[in-house]
Amino acid sequence: MMELKVDLGERSYPIYLGEGLLKDCAAYFDKHAISKRAPLLVVTDESVARHHLQPVMDSLTAGGYKASSFIVPPGEGSKSLQMLEKIVTAALEAGLDRKSAIVALGGGVVGDLAGFAAASFMRGIAFVQMPTTILAHDSSVGGKVAVNHPLAKNIIGAFHQPEMVLYDVTTLQTLPQRDISAGLSEMIKHGLIWDADFVTWLENNREKLLSLDPEALQYGLYQGCKVKSLVVSQDERENGLRAILNLGHTIGHALEAVAGYNELLHGEAISIGMVGSARLAMKLGYSEDIYTVTKRILQSFGLPVRLPEQYDTARIMSALMHDKKFKEGTMTFIIPTAVGQVEIRNDVRREWVEEVVEQLKREA
Amino acid sequence: MMELKVDLGERSYPIYLGEGLLKDCAAYFDKHAISKRAPLLVVTDESVARHHLQPVMDSLTAGGYKASSFIVPPGEGSKSLQMLEKIVTAALEAGLDRKSAIVALGGGVVGDLAGFAAASFMRGIAFVQMPTTILAHDSSVGGKVAVNHPLAKNIIGAFHQPEMVLYDVTTLQTLPQRDISAGLSEMIKHGLIWDADFVTWLENNREKLLSLDPEALQYGLYQGCKVKSLVVSQDERENGLRAILNLGHTIGHALEAVAGYNELLHGEAISIGMVGSARLAMKLGYSEDIYTVTKRILQSFGLPVRLPEQYDTARIMSALMHDKKFKEGTMTFIIPTAVGQVEIRNDVRREWVEEVVEQLKREA
Ligand SMILES: NC(=O)c1ccc[n+]([C@@H]2O[C@H](COP(=O)([O-])OP(=O)(O)OC[C@H]3O[C@@H](n4cnc5c(N)ncnc54)[C@H](O)[C@@H]3O)[C@@H](O)[C@H]2O)c1
Ligand SMILES: NC(=O)c1ccc[n+]([C@@H]2O[C@H](COP(=O)([O-])OP(=O)(O)OC[C@H]3O[C@@H](n4cnc5c(N)ncnc54)[C@H](O)[C@@H]3O)[C@@H](O)[C@H]2O)c1
Ligand SMILES: [Zn+2]
Ligand SMILES: [Zn+2]
Repeated sequence: MMELKVDLGERSYPIYLGEGLLKDCAAYFDKHAISKRAPLLVVTDESVARHHLQPVMDSLTAGGYKASSFIVPPGEGSKSLQMLEKIVTAALEAGLDRKSAIVALGGGVVGDLAGFAAASFMRGIAFVQMPTTILAHDSSVGGKVAVNHPLAKNIIGAFHQPEMVLYDVTTLQTLPQRDISAGLSEMIKHGLIWDADFVTWLENNREKLLSLDPEALQYGLYQGCKVKSLVVSQDERENGLRAILNLGHTIGHALEAVAGYNELLHGEAISIGMVGSARLAMKLGYSEDIYTVTKRILQSFGLPVRLPEQYDTARIMSALMHDKKFKEGTMTFIIPTAVGQVEIRNDVRREWVEEVVEQLKREA
Repeated sequence: MMELKVDLGERSYPIYLGEGLLKDCAAYFDKHAISKRAPLLVVTDESVARHHLQPVMDSLTAGGYKASSFIVPPGEGSKSLQMLEKIVTAALEAGLDRKSAIVALGGGVVGDLAGFAAASFMRGIAFVQMPTTILAHDSSVGGKVAVNHPLAKNIIGAFHQPEMVLYDVTTLQTLPQRDISAGLSEMIKHGLIWDADFVTWLENNREKLLSLDPEALQYGLYQGCKVKSLVVSQDERENGLRAILNLGHTIGHALEAVAGYNELLHGEAISIGMVGSARLAMKLGYSEDIYTVTKRILQSFGLPVRLPEQYDTARIMSALMHDKKFKEGTMTFIIPTAVGQVEIRNDVRREWVEEVVEQLKREA
């Protein structure tokens, strides 16, 4: 078992990473003084529930906790205010009060949704993250929680740090193949923005990661969580540095919006976005190296680097401008300048972005 | 113009109280460095908009702000997640971003709703309170914002302090009579929990207050805001002291729930609740004096002190138990022990509460 601390003063918390943690989760709840007097609500989705809910409920019950569960349909569509209202109904019916905790058992969708429920139920109660996807090594750390609005992703939310992150890597064995690659996309992002050695390690351990070798997986998740938590510790509310975590996300979010949030997985969209950022780096005068590496590593992990032809450039540009405003023809982008290094640039010209979107359709 | 500071460290802010502030509101926005680059959204309700929206929009526009408005139907029904989603639609269409502010122009309903929108839009943007009811001297101070769930009032919310409270007492001249008394109910509460001299002053200035004499009104609101802000400064997140602001509210909320949130105004419900608390004080051995004073002053202000017969005691008790849990047959109540003084008691017996509910139906 590995442990990592997210350093946020009073709001600091540990990430526990290891095998078989879920079937002993009550011990961790105990350790973190989660109240046994007040009922808990475990929020999860149908696919996760099928494989991993029972051991959690069994451990909590055996440990003297009074826990109920609420199961949402899988997928981005559940990150809505309508689903938040249903969770609150379940919370009230289960008798949750200010001393209760809400537990997110699942990927980023469940984490973001249940996290916002915990942030707003009675103006904020305790929250525990139990990530079950690779992608969630990113989403479960840092306290950003949110639901979507029909017009914009993650637009209604809060900063609400969990009491702890309990990351049981054995749950990952049941992940669908596409979600494995999509999750590794954020792991690669953490390497690209912060740690060149980690990028090398990722390339060398590709086979093991894709085949879910427990040891490699645990090390990769540890490094990914470490980058995320170092950045978040220095800028909890994204006043500056934290923005670097958005490498590939400006274009990625626009693609997700245009695709209607289901054709492309988040990790796939930001994979294309990261290639786009590397192309923008070239426009800004950086060498082709970073572009070559970015594209090679993403492609080798089975991630898309090319934008399907049918995505209309004009619609992508308008989604982009919704997300971030162009100020006098330029906009802010996270630009990779070397492997393991990025810059926040606010002088990226609109026409470059448009050219890059077109280029992405022609990537080999 | 009077000014009062709510002392909350980094989150401190002023309450400006005076006549004609709305038509000059842009000057206050300027003073508080509200950005002119990012659009503002003014949220209000139909009744308030009819009388008071135009001067606000005119001042903002003349002052160089780009402001849009969003108008909700009046009444508690607008404090919903559905209305929150509509506000976010309006915010996105108006192009609000992280530097924008949401402005609440109205009573407690608009303040709570727009405040929660500001707390959660893009995970929190700036917020300005412009209260237009007497009751809102309470709701606009202290940062509690929320919407209702069909099963429970104020259950989904946040703590989100405003940048400032801009209280233009001239707006109160258009208040319906029932809302005048209902608002004064919270003012009386602030006297009863904290300041016996203020209670005396309230009794002596009843006629002036009920006829909206500007000077009396301004002084009363100032004192009410002062009590509220002193309490909140000491306990922002209601870990202890802040609970005293709930005098009359445990029974009051149960009555509102049983009445379906429309027969009784909030101020009316807590008026009955405060009489109930004074009766509970007698059960705990305190003298009849506090009961006599509480009932006399509320009644003289035209507020209900008697519970209509049709309210079913069993339903009230079950709503009460939803709100706060009875622990082994006892529950927590704010108990008035003398004029200007209360205690937080957790040894109030269930059967006393039931007896008091019955007594309230027989109050003279
Ligand atoms: N809060 C943040 O900081 C942050 C960061 C990155 C991404 N996100 C959000 O995360 C979401 C994407 O996360 P995700 O990729 O984990 O999505 P997800 O939660 O939808 O999970 C992906 C799919 O895998 C299934 N699944 C999850 N765990 C499983 C398991 N162990 N076995 C079998 N199936 C399993 C789910 O049912 C789902 O169908 C997006 O909504 C994104 O906005 C948030
Ligand atoms: N956040 C807090 O700390 C806090 C504290 C107390 C009460 N509250 C909440 O406040 C709400 C009650 O507040 P309220 O009584 O101000 O209700 P409200 O906002 O509904 O206003 C009462 C009525 O007066 C009308 N109105 C408002 N200003 C007017 C004006 N100047 N002229 C003419 N009509 C006007 C409104 O349209 C409404 O019909 C409740 O939802 C309660 O839960 C919150
Ligand atoms: Zn991401
Ligand atoms: Zn009140």
